Amino acid sequence: MVHPAKPDWQFSERARSLTSSAIREILKVTERSDVISFAGGLPSPEGFPVEVIQKAFSDVLATRGKSALQYGPTEGYAPLREWVARDLTAHGARVLPEEVLIVSGSQQGLDLIGKVLIDPASRVLVETPSYLGALQSFSLYQPEFRSVPSDEEGLLPDALSSELCAKARFLYALPNFQNPTGRTLSLERRHALVEAAARHHLPIIEDDPYGELRYRGQPLPGLLGLAQGSGASVFRLGSFSKVLAPGLRLGYIAAPAPLLAKLAQAKQATDLHTASLTQMAVHEIVKGGFLESHLPAIRRLYQRQCTVMLEALAATFPKEAHWTHPDGGMFIWVTLPSGMDTTTLLEAAIKEKVAFVPGAPFYAEAGPRNTLRLSFVTVPEERIREGIARLGALITHTLAASEPRAA
Amino acid sequence: MVHPAKPDWQFSERARSLTSSAIREILKVTERSDVISFAGGLPSPEGFPVEVIQKAFSDVLATRGKSALQYGPTEGYAPLREWVARDLTAHGARVLPEEVLIVSGSQQGLDLIGKVLIDPASRVLVETPSYLGALQSFSLYQPEFRSVPSDEEGLLPDALSSELCAKARFLYALPNFQNPTGRTLSLERRHALVEAAARHHLPIIEDDPYGELRYRGQPLPGLLGLAQGSGASVFRLGSFSKVLAPGLRLGYIAAPAPLLAKLAQAKQATDLHTASLTQMAVHEIVKGGFLESHLPAIRRLYQRQCTVMLEALAATFPKEAHWTHPDGGMFIWVTLPSGMDTTTLLEAAIKEKVAFVPGAPFYAEAGPRNTLRLSFVTVPEERIREGIARLGALITHTLAASEPRAA
Repeated sequence: MVHPAKPDWQFSERARSLTSSAIREILKVTERSDVISFAGGLPSPEGFPVEVIQKAFSDVLATRGKSALQYGPTEGYAPLREWVARDLTAHGARVLPEEVLIVSGSQQGLDLIGKVLIDPASRVLVETPSYLGALQSFSLYQPEFRSVPSDEEGLLPDALSSELCAKARFLYALPNFQNPTGRTLSLERRHALVEAAARHHLPIIEDDPYGELRYRGQPLPGLLGLAQGSGASVFRLGSFSKVLAPGLRLGYIAAPAPLLAKLAQAKQATDLHTASLTQMAVHEIVKGGFLESHLPAIRRLYQRQCTVMLEALAATFPKEAHWTHPDGGMFIWVTLPSGMDTTTLLEAAIKEKVAFVPGAPFYAEAGPRNTLRLSFVTVPEERIREGIARLGALITHTLAASEPRAA
Repeated sequence: MVHPAKPDWQFSERARSLTSSAIREILKVTERSDVISFAGGLPSPEGFPVEVIQKAFSDVLATRGKSALQYGPTEGYAPLREWVARDLTAHGARVLPEEVLIVSGSQQGLDLIGKVLIDPASRVLVETPSYLGALQSFSLYQPEFRSVPSDEEGLLPDALSSELCAKARFLYALPNFQNPTGRTLSLERRHALVEAAARHHLPIIEDDPYGELRYRGQPLPGLLGLAQGSGASVFRLGSFSKVLAPGLRLGYIAAPAPLLAKLAQAKQATDLHTASLTQMAVHEIVKGGFLESHLPAIRRLYQRQCTVMLEALAATFPKEAHWTHPDGGMFIWVTLPSGMDTTTLLEAAIKEKVAFVPGAPFYAEAGPRNTLRLSFVTVPEERIREGIARLGALITHTLAASEPRAA
């Protein structure tokens, strides 16, 4: 494009605060196929039911092509909203179809939540650490983030003091196999969290993209179901990305009708509605119970890959490092000795043709420099072993080099 | 959903300014199939190439299913970006693939433009009247709208005074078969507009969803092509909604690389990326030149429907009314005698089972009450005649009832 040498446009304050994310830059480097990348949060394509999806798109176009290709209602395709409401109800949270908004991936759900609930300088509570994509999405609306202290069982409900909750617009929580840590909020803490939320009038955004990917232990009740009747407000984000395929860009928000109406108005101004064809095809797939037969295979695949990575970590990482043992999902979180900096380590790792995401960007406020996230779902087993061995050797070497010599 | 009697959440200031749109409420009423609705901006489903789309989705899933279902780059599917750049270049605007961002319908383009270029109270210039969806989308970022005076040839470049342009973030313009009026900016005015934009350092957002739907006269050069080398900054929004199908939700923004990078960062935070499968299927369709063979049929269909509506208007509307004669697109804009109020008229019209959109919401600042928008593309020919006859009779009757009786 031929354009003026000096730009005429002026960026908004919010745009000036946007910077290219660490994950984004890393993913660019690791697009080189010779790098073993544990960085991306890409589900394993082995789990995509390609033929089932192909048949569904074909059937919808063959039988209802004209309505599938036409503009549709902002709230979403009614039968899919009904399916989501029934599915949530079957999982213990009573939800009506009119309380479901279909969105273009749950990332869009985060953007709409930000649009509708965050003013500049509004307080937003997040876990320590939290999902980077949510921090980026909310950041566009310029909140003041406050981190809720957390440990290996998730956030600490006792830390939700009146001072911390005062004027907070909401708490953003990922109770199951959290991104980035893989940790799960314990049942006891779920009860305590919902109780604290009711006491402090603190709405909770429950983001649960990984909940169906549990391969160990018993499923725990979701925050939305636990909150019903407790006096706490919980709004839930869900996604078809991890149970079907992320390239479809399909998710939902479940929220009380008055909030849902406002979210739908914001969505109308944002992209009118989510693709009709995609919604109808996904409904075609899920309506007959496909996920019940499909999910066990995904869970087995992810469990196997998780086990391989945990074994490789135990075999090759130095004893000073420790890491999470997730019951589901896609991620393991590693903590290295406190002197190490994983951002520096990444540069060395790329030279060894292995990649991960440094932990620092997942902290809304200043956090430790010695953590990192590993995804075990994108890379095949033998490459997991090879990549973790390379990383383990690099960390051992870096540690040895930094130790003072014996006198 | 069982939730607290008193909501715990607090809406953002921008959310409180959102109200349900007139179009939205009207569309709900007119979903009743017994209403002849000229209200919606829905393209005729007769023009959707259902089988071609079915084959494209099927082929992409059969041959590249795993990548079509995986997360993809925020900027869009590279071959589709290349196609858009080549297509724009063939239409007289030199654009490189890296200057193209694929978006989820051009409505999302409007949202991203608002996110990246509008601060609260930023001045934004719009035509009089302008596209309601753009006013809604920009409104979320709380600009100060200023209307540029316009006549039947579109906006008046001479009205772009230094005072009006001072500190304006951009001018939003629809040069071809504008929504809602159907009018087209003349060639002379296009040149004058680009010159004024260069002089005032006023960026122009050129929104052109209807440009390929010209069925009368010669195509006029787009603002982006005209601006190149002139010193003016033009950013272009395009859409596949009117040339293929709106239910796919696919469009693009063409902008200089530094602006495009910022828009892509905003898009990443907004919905990560547009569905990979949809992008690949649409590329499959357009790459071999399908639109060149498909568009003439759409143009013929729309021209026929436009002619039918113009004839019906001439035959049944009172002589005091006048209306536009579009050379393309989907809309006719009617101006009734100055005493009439089309919002009141709509209520009466719904009782007669015919609907339109009152003109008032299309004005960013207070506008006349006696205008209305008619779409001629959704309703079949015989229903156009019937609906316009009902509306003409109603207007004639309303006019007669309001006239003072002869002494």
